Order: sequence, then C-alpha cells, then structure tokens
Amino acid sequence: MSDSSKSKSPSRRQFLSGAAAAGAGAVAATAARAAGPDPLITEVQAWATATGDGVDATPYGLPIRFETDVRRRNVEWLTADTISSINFTPIHALDGTITPQGCAFERHHSGAIEMRKQDYRLMINGLVDTPLVFTYEDLERFPRENHVYFCECAANTGMEWAGAQLNGAQFTHGMIHNMEYSGVSLRTLLQEAGLGAAGDLKDKWVYVEGADASSNGRSIPMEKALDDVLVAFKANGEALRKEHGYPVRLCVPGWEGNMWVKWLRRIEVVDQPVQSREETSKYTDTLADGTSRKWTWAMDAKSVVTSPSPQSPIKHGKGPLVITGLAWSGRGAIKRVDVSKDGGKTWETARLGAPGAKMALSRFYLDTEWDGEEMLLQSRAMDETGYVQPTKTELRDVRGENSIYHNNCIQTWWVKPNGEAENVEVS
Amino acid sequence: MSDSSKSKSPSRRQFLSGAAAAGAGAVAATAARAAGPDPLITEVQAWATATGDGVDATPYGLPIRFETDVRRRNVEWLTADTISSINFTPIHALDGTITPQGCAFERHHSGAIEMRKQDYRLMINGLVDTPLVFTYEDLERFPRENHVYFCECAANTGMEWAGAQLNGAQFTHGMIHNMEYSGVSLRTLLQEAGLGAAGDLKDKWVYVEGADASSNGRSIPMEKALDDVLVAFKANGEALRKEHGYPVRLCVPGWEGNMWVKWLRRIEVVDQPVQSREETSKYTDTLADGTSRKWTWAMDAKSVVTSPSPQSPIKHGKGPLVITGLAWSGRGAIKRVDVSKDGGKTWETARLGAPGAKMALSRFYLDTEWDGEEMLLQSRAMDETGYVQPTKTELRDVRGENSIYHNNCIQTWWVKPNGEAENVEVS
Repeated sequence: MSDSSKSKSPSRRQFLSGAAAAGAGAVAATAARAAGPDPLITEVQAWATATGDGVDATPYGLPIRFETDVRRRNVEWLTADTISSINFTPIHALDGTITPQGCAFERHHSGAIEMRKQDYRLMINGLVDTPLVFTYEDLERFPRENHVYFCECAANTGMEWAGAQLNGAQFTHGMIHNMEYSGVSLRTLLQEAGLGAAGDLKDKWVYVEGADASSNGRSIPMEKALDDVLVAFKANGEALRKEHGYPVRLCVPGWEGNMWVKWLRRIEVVDQPVQSREETSKYTDTLADGTSRKWTWAMDAKSVVTSPSPQSPIKHGKGPLVITGLAWSGRGAIKRVDVSKDGGKTWETARLGAPGAKMALSRFYLDTEWDGEEMLLQSRAMDETGYVQPTKTELRDVRGENSIYHNNCIQTWWVKPNGEAENVEVS
Repeated sequence: MSDSSKSKSPSRRQFLSGAAAAGAGAVAATAARAAGPDPLITEVQAWATATGDGVDATPYGLPIRFETDVRRRNVEWLTADTISSINFTPIHALDGTITPQGCAFERHHSGAIEMRKQDYRLMINGLVDTPLVFTYEDLERFPRENHVYFCECAANTGMEWAGAQLNGAQFTHGMIHNMEYSGVSLRTLLQEAGLGAAGDLKDKWVYVEGADASSNGRSIPMEKALDDVLVAFKANGEALRKEHGYPVRLCVPGWEGNMWVKWLRRIEVVDQPVQSREETSKYTDTLADGTSRKWTWAMDAKSVVTSPSPQSPIKHGKGPLVITGLAWSGRGAIKRVDVSKDGGKTWETARLGAPGAKMALSRFYLDTEWDGEEMLLQSRAMDETGYVQPTKTELRDVRGENSIYHNNCIQTWWVKPNGEAENVEVS
C-alpha cells in the first residue's frame, strides 16, 4: 500500500469544498478525518488475518448484530395491549425508498392471524354474474402485476395534532412502508365473476373484508376498484409476512392503510357503501365544529426529514451535511421537495433520488454545508396535481385540533448546535 | 354473506377463457375450484373466532413458518467447506424483481467478516493528488444516490456447461440478486482525492480490495470507475447484511459479482491492471484451444423461467397457466423476452412486468393456456443493444465446454404431463 497517505484537516477540506461549491456541478466535499496512524496504512487489519463465517449459517439472513436498533418499535402508551396496536418503521435509519418487510410497520385490529395457503379462500359475491370462491392456487393462474406502492396508516402523525409529542421520525411518521407488490388486479377478478349483474357501475361499491376477527371491512368505490387496486401475494418478491396479511392482502394505492385489508377473504359488490365501523366511528376526521368528514381515502402529499432528526443526530460538527428524507402523495407522483433550515422562512429545492413514481415513496436529499448553528429543519412536498403540503397552522385552520387521522402537515426538527434534534412546533 | 355462491367447473371456465382470448385485451381466466361446501360460505372461519398475535413479537420480522423452504441453499458437493462457498437465491419461489436481503445469495472467498461501523476505514491512494482515508461517517457526508441493480456471480449457471446438472432454477440461476442500493458514487470519492496526479485517465485503472483475508482484489478500468460504480452502504433501504459486506461494499453495475468487493477497504489508482489472482487464475474463461479470455466483466443478456420449473411444478392441471421468469443484461435494459414451449422451435413474446431498467432484473410473464401435454420451456432475452441470448449450442461453438464463468445460454425445462419439470438439454 502507499505510504504517502496523510490525514487532512477538516477545516482545509471544508475550505476547498466551499470554493468548489461555487462552480457548476460541484459536490459537497467532506473531510477525511482519520486521527493519527491508521491501521489501513501501517498495520494489517485483524479481519485479514483469519477466515470469517461460512455461508448459510441461518435459514433466512438477518441484519448484523450491530444494527439491532434498526427495528420496528411500539409506543407503550398508545394502546391498551398489543393485539390491537401499531409499531413503527425505523425510517430514521433507512435510506433509499424500499422498506424491507422485516422492519415494515404493522397495524392489527385483532392480532395477526396465521393461515396456511391451502386453507386460504377468497370469495367474490354480491352483485356479480357468478359468485366465485378462489383458492390461493387459483389466484396464481391469473395475469400478475408488479408495482411499488407506499402504505400509510391514516393515523400516521396523528399524535401530533395537539402539539409536538413524539421525539423521532420513526414515531411521528413511521406508520408507513413502501414495497414492490406482486399480485392480480382486482379488476381482473371482478371481471371473472362478471359485473353485468351490477348494472351501471358508476354508483356501485365493493365491500372488502379480512379473515381476522376484526374483519376490518371497508367500502371502496367501484371506480377505484376497477382502476389500480391489487390483490397481492408477494411483497419485495417474497411471500407477505404473517403480520402483513399472509397469504393475500389488498393494496389500495395511495389510499389509507386501513383499506389495505389483510388476510383478504371476501369482496362483495354492493349498491351502496356498507358504513362499517371502520369507516364511520373510525377513520373519519372530527372537525372543529364537531361534525366529521368521511371518505377521506387518499393520503395527501406529505414529507419528513429522516436525517438529521431526533433519532439521527448530526455527529460530525459543521461542514458538509446531507439532509435527507421521504416524500409521498396518494394522488400521484412527487414532483418537488423543498427544505427549509429556518422554520419555513426560506426554502431550497432538494434533489430527488429518482423521478417521482405514482403512489410510491420518493427519497430526497439536500447536499449542504452546516454552519454549526441551530436549524429549524422542515421539508415541503409537492405532487403532480400541484398540491403543496400545508403547515400545521394551515391544516388546523381548516380541520381544527380534534382529528386523529390525515395529518400531513409540515414537520419541524429543531437541530441544536451540538447536533441533537428535537420535535418542535413553529408558529 | 351471500348464499348463492357456487363452484364453477374448470372446464366451463376454460371454455369461456378460450373464447375470450380471441378478443383484444382478454385476460387468461382461471377456474374457481372450491370442492364441496366452502367454510367461507357455510361456516365462520376459525381465524375470526379469536384474536391473533400482538405486534412486535420479534425485533426483526421474519417470514411465516410455512415459508421456511424459501431460503438460500448450498450445493453440498460444490466446495470443500463453507468458508469459501456459495449459496443460492430461491428465485423459483420469488416474484417481482426485488430480492430481500434475507434470501439473497452469498459468495465468500474467505468467509464473512464482522466489522463495526466505527472500525471501518476506506483508503484511496495511488495516483491521486491527496491520498485519503474515510471513516463510515465521512462517507455519509457525500451526496448519495439510489439505484436498483442486479448482482450476478460470474459462475452463475457455470455447472451447466457440460450438460444439465442441477435440477432447479435456484441452483442453475440463483447466484443473482437485485436490490435498491444507496451510497456514494465512486467518481465523487475519486474526485475528492483528486485525479490530476493520474494524468491521462484513458489508460488508468482502479484496484479495489476488501478487508477480508482473501482481499478479493480486482482491477477496474477508470472509464467504468468514473461512470456508474457505487460505494454502497444500504441495500433495500437498510444496512448491508454482514454477509453482503457490512458496512460498505462496491456495486459495479452489470459487471460480474466478484468485482462487487465486500467490506471495501482500499481503492488504488494505478496505471495498469494489477493482474490479481481473482482476474487471472480465476474469473477467466478457458476456451476450446486451451487459451483463456479475460476482462470479461459485463454479464451478457440472460433469462430463466422461474415457474414452472423443477422446484415449482404445475399443480393445477391443464388450462390457464402463468409462465414467469427473470431477465437481465449487464449492458443495459432488457427490451424483450420470448418464451418457447417446444424447445425453441416457436416463440411467443412475453409481457414485461415493467419497462426494462439498466442493469436491473426484469420480470416477465406469459399468460397462456396449458394443454396438459409436455413442454420444453425456454426463455430468450434481448437487451437494448440488440444482443440476443444464445442457445447452449451456439455458446459452446464459440467458447467450448471448459469454461466455468459467463454461461448465459438459454435454459430448458422439460415440463411433463404430470406438471413436474426437469432440467434438460435440447439439441
């Protein structure tokens, strides 16, 4: 190896970086901060002196033990027990856009049930020409599709209506995951049963329910049912986990997670919505005047800075800093994300990791220089419809403070000079 | 629930399907084959009579126990021990395109080493203006990118040169995975060190090596190093698994997996290739005349039917059948995949699950009707350069039968009338 390596002082590199940043296409440079003699240069590293572990030590590969903190987590006080409860995706520690199933959030209404594929049945009944019952193997014989979609619980960020409550992006925004689903279009299955008996489809609905005790029944307008709803049996290539609805769940792209019925057992074509518990007493938004709005299916455009954030503080001092986060919209693709360091007074347009895709998470980055001073970090998403993510004040002006669901307001992290971050509100 | 459901005979549905298939846009229909009274219709299912499991039972969610067969697997006789060995992705059981890290193949040359992020160092030295040593946190301060790339071992399908050896797509084609990587462009890091000292970059190379005992050193032409090579620290959003190079590996899009150095510790800019063991005695192709070709980096276009296949037989008898598989090219995006049922005499164009993306897996489907007769199933990939995947005979005519690496020939599965499939050769 070369013996000419030398460590470079952060300040010099930052100076160079500052100079380079004036040029077009310049990248934010960072410092090589090796302290003292480096084992790479002067010594043989320990890992090169012995062999490591052999292949296939476990049936299913797990994260390295140093990453055990990257896991779904509960908030103890949120629910009375874990049977009807939620855990949160560790979005503060992830990058890119795909969520591994192993750390994707769960929400159960009566616990996760265990069903074998051979016991699985899906019935389509109601206003159809021929009621049908499908086995799992039947479903595999229909043409399949693959799509990456986000699934967000309508209650994501719900605890924040009243004020800054939870100190971490995992807890404020972690009821979301984003996976590549494989399955059969619901349209295909409805056409197999035949919709002639339903007459004019304009005012028809499908009622979908799961096999668990809650049944979690929801009404979906026929227009959506025939558009992009997917009867899915794989996520990120492999079988759905038990907790995500094995062997079959519904994907209702862009719409609230409660409608993504797990352990899907029945689809009934009906001439009016069922007005089930899940769409009347729950998953409605109580407004300031005490009335409730319902049929609030689509998740409005939203974003959050995942790093830096309370669980992902800045550890490296001033200089080059990557600010990153996630943005999404239930009404289409994300077109732009802006980032503010001063609580919304000024904004910079972030870089999207890839062009936005419909009803899928977008990753954004702002490659910047941190001056070591406090920041009020915010992100603001815009989708292809022109919709702009609102401030918390704007949202409260319209919806009051009694809601639980559909809080898509701009989030603020107060980043302190020591690099730690806190959940705060700015007026 | 409706009590008007009735099971429909397969033959009727198949007749309807056959009739419908004559129309444009018709889908392959399948039968609802519920035998006798169905619990969905006449009984309350057991799962609805009690609550299920609560959330967060395990730190990291695992596949349901019924899917334990979907796992990486070794071939016992392939290597003397597991320290320098391979396991295979269960591609016969996956759908879509993303490979979960938990079941993505591994290849180690001296075992998988365990390194903490805080112990990680990456050195850039050689013909650079300023040799640099980066910590893991340094790397996180550079602009990051996200890309889905396949990683294929050059030896994938290597055991098939001499004839049909291994009975399953997992074993013949499972040394491949496809993940969304997040990391820093190698170009960015080389520019940080400065390439002025290297002079004319046209004939320069980088030599990359890992921290494990094998070091697995490989030479990469500067043109590729400055193009799309990624210094990656996340795969599918989360940290690389230990076995995939935690905390940092190289991604060399489209090029043989051996170059995707794991536990990346050093990048040296050099004025000629190093001619390391890994690129001279290994990862070269011995031709019929005894000479070897080398610098065979790009993985040529290739495809395989994953279902039906020996590990994924047809269980449902004749009628609607989904034939599916994977296609990829190291030279760009997949443009088209054809499927043959008669060993290559006639071909039908398959449907791609999504438009092909550069250096990423494509999923293809052929929605068809099976007449219950034997099939000689093949798939043939075409990439955006116009390259067409060759037959085994065509490949042997050029390369002989002594090679181990870079076997991208068309694979044949003999599907028997009972639905079982076998690995065979057709002449």
